Amino acid sequence: MGLLEEFSGKIAPMVNGYIYAAVKGKPGTLYEAALHLLRAGGKRLRPLAVVAAAQMLGEPVEKALPFAAAVELLHNYALIHDDIIDRDEYRRGVPTVHKVWGESLAIVAGDLLFAKAFEVLADALDRGIGPERVALATRHLSRAASLIAEGQALDSLFVERDDVVLEEYLDMAYRKTGSLFEAALVLGGLTSTADQSILSLLAEYGKNIGIAFQIRDDVLGITGKANVIGKPLYSDIREGRRTILVVYALEALSPAEREELLEILGARDVDEERLEKAVELIKKSGAVEYAMKLAKEYSEKARQAISRFPDNEGRRVLEELAVFVVEREK
Amino acid sequence: MGLLEEFSGKIAPMVNGYIYAAVKGKPGTLYEAALHLLRAGGKRLRPLAVVAAAQMLGEPVEKALPFAAAVELLHNYALIHDDIIDRDEYRRGVPTVHKVWGESLAIVAGDLLFAKAFEVLADALDRGIGPERVALATRHLSRAASLIAEGQALDSLFVERDDVVLEEYLDMAYRKTGSLFEAALVLGGLTSTADQSILSLLAEYGKNIGIAFQIRDDVLGITGKANVIGKPLYSDIREGRRTILVVYALEALSPAEREELLEILGARDVDEERLEKAVELIKKSGAVEYAMKLAKEYSEKARQAISRFPDNEGRRVLEELAVFVVEREK
Repeated sequence: MGLLEEFSGKIAPMVNGYIYAAVKGKPGTLYEAALHLLRAGGKRLRPLAVVAAAQMLGEPVEKALPFAAAVELLHNYALIHDDIIDRDEYRRGVPTVHKVWGESLAIVAGDLLFAKAFEVLADALDRGIGPERVALATRHLSRAASLIAEGQALDSLFVERDDVVLEEYLDMAYRKTGSLFEAALVLGGLTSTADQSILSLLAEYGKNIGIAFQIRDDVLGITGKANVIGKPLYSDIREGRRTILVVYALEALSPAEREELLEILGARDVDEERLEKAVELIKKSGAVEYAMKLAKEYSEKARQAISRFPDNEGRRVLEELAVFVVEREK
Repeated sequence: MGLLEEFSGKIAPMVNGYIYAAVKGKPGTLYEAALHLLRAGGKRLRPLAVVAAAQMLGEPVEKALPFAAAVELLHNYALIHDDIIDRDEYRRGVPTVHKVWGESLAIVAGDLLFAKAFEVLADALDRGIGPERVALATRHLSRAASLIAEGQALDSLFVERDDVVLEEYLDMAYRKTGSLFEAALVLGGLTSTADQSILSLLAEYGKNIGIAFQIRDDVLGITGKANVIGKPLYSDIREGRRTILVVYALEALSPAEREELLEILGARDVDEERLEKAVELIKKSGAVEYAMKLAKEYSEKARQAISRFPDNEGRRVLEELAVFVVEREK
């Protein structure tokens, strides 16, 4: 068993316990809906990153739990709202929140988790983290939340465009996914210090694994197995998303192939055969190899950023995490 | 011109300026959508309450602006999401955000304002408010946000029920509306002090004017003028909301009249004549007089809560505000 897996087996239940204790209330239906995806599983990578960063700086797990829970709650708010927006029906192997409870309650369930994220963040005051660092954590987490909203909007708006370039994709991926990993690492650091030079290195690590994670997500959307990733394959293509694969393929393919791919993208009622055709075109363009090469570069940049920190278990977990985000199968 | 109006004329533009400077970014469409209702008007009562509370405790306006903006941003996030949920098409005399930009972007626009609320809250760090009080403000504002989500869910769930009692209504009104006025007053107080006995009195004032405000809102929903309140009359009845008027009328009417009212409530395609019939039944039950009497009691409780504070302009504004929330025509 790898170190990351061992660490996860120990920490994830503590994070879950913390979250379930904090997210309770009435009406029961609302709380059921809000906790639905959390109960369905998930890898808890972001809270693990918070705890590992804290541990790398010598802090105990317990001290990092409020920030770890805050980051996971914010992530889950975004999942619930994203699923509504993308009309996705499955995640983590279960029907999405709006499929079970309807869109209205799903919107409010996401809002509740958003609120709870900042509530548990403030609970760090009771765990020996000084108010100065709690206030800074509020600043970093809320900035990430703004970036997530921007990233989500960009992702949706890109669907209407055929000329999204790599730089725009990477900016979107940073906002949508990188910003929360970045905040996770900074919050992990804030359990121990407000030293800007340390926080910047942690931010650099987080931002880069976040972008690598998003690129790998795009790749798994066409190379993954539906029963492993917990949602239907090719939904990105059905929704017309400008994933890194699509952005690359649209540039690399011949004009005729490009037209064919564009025709399939976003045609929601497209049949399996046409979907397979789109995947074939994307694979033929070399987009998968290109994307994985890029993901590995971001992963490597992340590892570089933490290379001067003490060589302890926390750091080794983060190093394994940087590899995991690009090699994972789900 | 009343003191409240004069105060509003001076403070509202400062709050607006602060918000417009803080809520900027890309993609432009997202920010346009997020600022749409703010630009359309609104009374800015919550930020005025923040500033007046701060002033009552001797603090300058400038110091209170980040907290004032935070409360208004949180209010506007809730409006955008509520309008989606309630399928309302007009507010403040303009089409709602989801009517103009679609539901998906409206969800994200609300999320963005939610995030910005906590971002500007953290900006208080740069305005001479200590980190301890910024961290406490995070705690109070996030608790209000959780309560708002609970209140919104209760409000929606009540629509399915014919047996909502007054106590449940008041609990819902506190969560949905009272909690944010409560947080507004506490945040106003936190610009000056973290003294729990002072903050509790401010909370008491805020909670009570918030409930009074919601009751008056329910009343205006049937006695107001559409062009003054900025949205169609009787939408509460069309949506089947369990307003205080409906809760009271369902208890006070004869069984036959009660059945008739229940039949009309929530029938979305109901014609004008039937709507007028529902209003007639509600008015006949004495619900309007009852509601206004109750609203005035809450308003009076609010004024009592601040009666021992220094008798200065800030306090007089809050006193006028407590009267205004129950006497307003919009």
